Amino acid sequence: MESVKAQSYEVHIDELAQAALNQHVAKYDYSKIFLLVDKNTKKYCLPTFEKMFTGTIDSIFEIEPGEENKHIHTCMQVWEHLSQFDGDRKSLLVNLGGGVLTDLGGFVASTFKRGIDFINIPTTLLSMVDASIGGKTGVDLGSLKNQIGVINQPQMVLIFPEFLKTLDARQTRSGYAEMLKHGLIKDKEYWDLLKTQNAFEAAANIQKSIAIKNEVVIQDPTEKGIRKILNFGHTLGHAIESYCLENYDKKTLLHGEAIAVGMILEGYLSHKLTGLPKLSLNEIKEVFLQHFDKEEFDGHDIDAILKLLKYDKKNSHGNINFVLLQSIGVAVTDIKVPDDLFEEAFAYYRE
Amino acid sequence: MESVKAQSYEVHIDELAQAALNQHVAKYDYSKIFLLVDKNTKKYCLPTFEKMFTGTIDSIFEIEPGEENKHIHTCMQVWEHLSQFDGDRKSLLVNLGGGVLTDLGGFVASTFKRGIDFINIPTTLLSMVDASIGGKTGVDLGSLKNQIGVINQPQMVLIFPEFLKTLDARQTRSGYAEMLKHGLIKDKEYWDLLKTQNAFEAAANIQKSIAIKNEVVIQDPTEKGIRKILNFGHTLGHAIESYCLENYDKKTLLHGEAIAVGMILEGYLSHKLTGLPKLSLNEIKEVFLQHFDKEEFDGHDIDAILKLLKYDKKNSHGNINFVLLQSIGVAVTDIKVPDDLFEEAFAYYRE
Repeated sequence: MESVKAQSYEVHIDELAQAALNQHVAKYDYSKIFLLVDKNTKKYCLPTFEKMFTGTIDSIFEIEPGEENKHIHTCMQVWEHLSQFDGDRKSLLVNLGGGVLTDLGGFVASTFKRGIDFINIPTTLLSMVDASIGGKTGVDLGSLKNQIGVINQPQMVLIFPEFLKTLDARQTRSGYAEMLKHGLIKDKEYWDLLKTQNAFEAAANIQKSIAIKNEVVIQDPTEKGIRKILNFGHTLGHAIESYCLENYDKKTLLHGEAIAVGMILEGYLSHKLTGLPKLSLNEIKEVFLQHFDKEEFDGHDIDAILKLLKYDKKNSHGNINFVLLQSIGVAVTDIKVPDDLFEEAFAYYRE
Repeated sequence: MESVKAQSYEVHIDELAQAALNQHVAKYDYSKIFLLVDKNTKKYCLPTFEKMFTGTIDSIFEIEPGEENKHIHTCMQVWEHLSQFDGDRKSLLVNLGGGVLTDLGGFVASTFKRGIDFINIPTTLLSMVDASIGGKTGVDLGSLKNQIGVINQPQMVLIFPEFLKTLDARQTRSGYAEMLKHGLIKDKEYWDLLKTQNAFEAAANIQKSIAIKNEVVIQDPTEKGIRKILNFGHTLGHAIESYCLENYDKKTLLHGEAIAVGMILEGYLSHKLTGLPKLSLNEIKEVFLQHFDKEEFDGHDIDAILKLLKYDKKNSHGNINFVLLQSIGVAVTDIKVPDDLFEEAFAYYRE
């Protein structure tokens, strides 16, 4: 499959990925090559990686998987490992894992000795279509997502669709939610295609999703303008994800599951504020609820979620800015939402 | 005094600094202004700052002073404070302190929500002539200096020579050592001037030192080439500084005190390897020992210091690259040093 040219690097897919990696490592005279994995990618993805990589891995470091470990304490472990095993400025870090691992590994590399090279190999559908583009690296602060980080680009991103076979249905749907978002904010035709597919079928469209995200990010790398549209569903979605993460009695939602709820809620806000037709709103709700369980949120939950909203890193001056839809395929940014609409949105989600 | 134009910002000195700060804050519509201080700058510098600043400080956060607190745990406290007090992407962090505080505060700002604006107000002679230029931010990892960080530029740097009156003789000499280095690596005339002055008199040359460092950094922001000359005295100096920091029975050396030793040692290496005349070497030793106590290092100390050398972040592929002098005012980079010369250098320092 054709490579996608991102800001300063390329996303190589499938057969081209292997050649690109081996050529890069042969060309750059890295002093050490470190590989970052978690329990799952060590078991399911490392054997494949080792088979196709012709260079030498000097050291493999395993971190605990999951959003709850996307913390500065995990970074400390990796920094200390790099230091202990003589990592220097000419070392390379290869991140083999989902979005948590590539975000964290990218941040560790960007800050170790003020920045060493890194290569991301996303292993989940979500990280292939989302974390592969945009250069966002970082970790959470308490339950607040991605509060600590930098924008920095990897040397390259490698996509091996083969890794998708290692995913369960829930993880696959989590990526599917982001792909549906790409349709909603930028490409009605893509939405119309995806909605007829299940998550596993949809995964064949990785390249299309990467290309849409890339087109947006290249226009606005620092998220001053159009890049904000990628946050559709994420303002409420992040708050819901944080809330479920920090409350042990709530089911922990995967990122895609949380933003699926967020997109229905923000779809409702779009209908009320930016002209999204009722029929389109109902279609959005129907498509997501076909694939994602309806979650339960009582009054107490909603209050707590709305409190978390104000900590969202995209807020400025205490105002909450939403990305909403004018129609399917057309998003608008910087919309303020009156407080009373939030309750209504949750009521619409519930009904 | 005239401002110095650095890469993307200006260093304003004295009367211009106050005007620049107040104009900047009036122009940019910051959502919150945070001020970072330590115990000392809160007591000695904050009153002056408050008198001349016409904007509103929303929140002041105090960290523990000293190199032993230049750690990720201190960053955690500052990140959490920024988050708790509603810091967002449009917030400003003003760092009022010495190099430890401006390095740490710059790193916190560069990584909070993937980067917010920051302004540095160095309060020690060392930080005025050194940390004010170059965009190096970061913290230590264990006893290894500046292992975690990024290169990122502040909005501006403000130098108030008035703060120099708050420094004791030891701190003033620590900055003086860096100024002498600027002469040694780049400007014989400047060295010849400084060597006739004591540390307090030399402090009047702040602008000259900033201009020399800036001239070097602008040519090579990422330290691939000429910028390395700024590390003269630092390869051994950092190892000595780290060693004294982690050994409770050794006197903790200020940065300038450690590199003063480093410059005598690397002066010796320069005499042996890159043609620094014996007379110049003796002059260097004499000038530094006029101002700095001779430190004691026994065989055990020297072994441990040489072990730390290999962790220096400037090393690549396990080789130790030194910056040495050909003559006073002319430095050369990337020089390998045979192991047996280190003992000799310490012997020369001792004799």
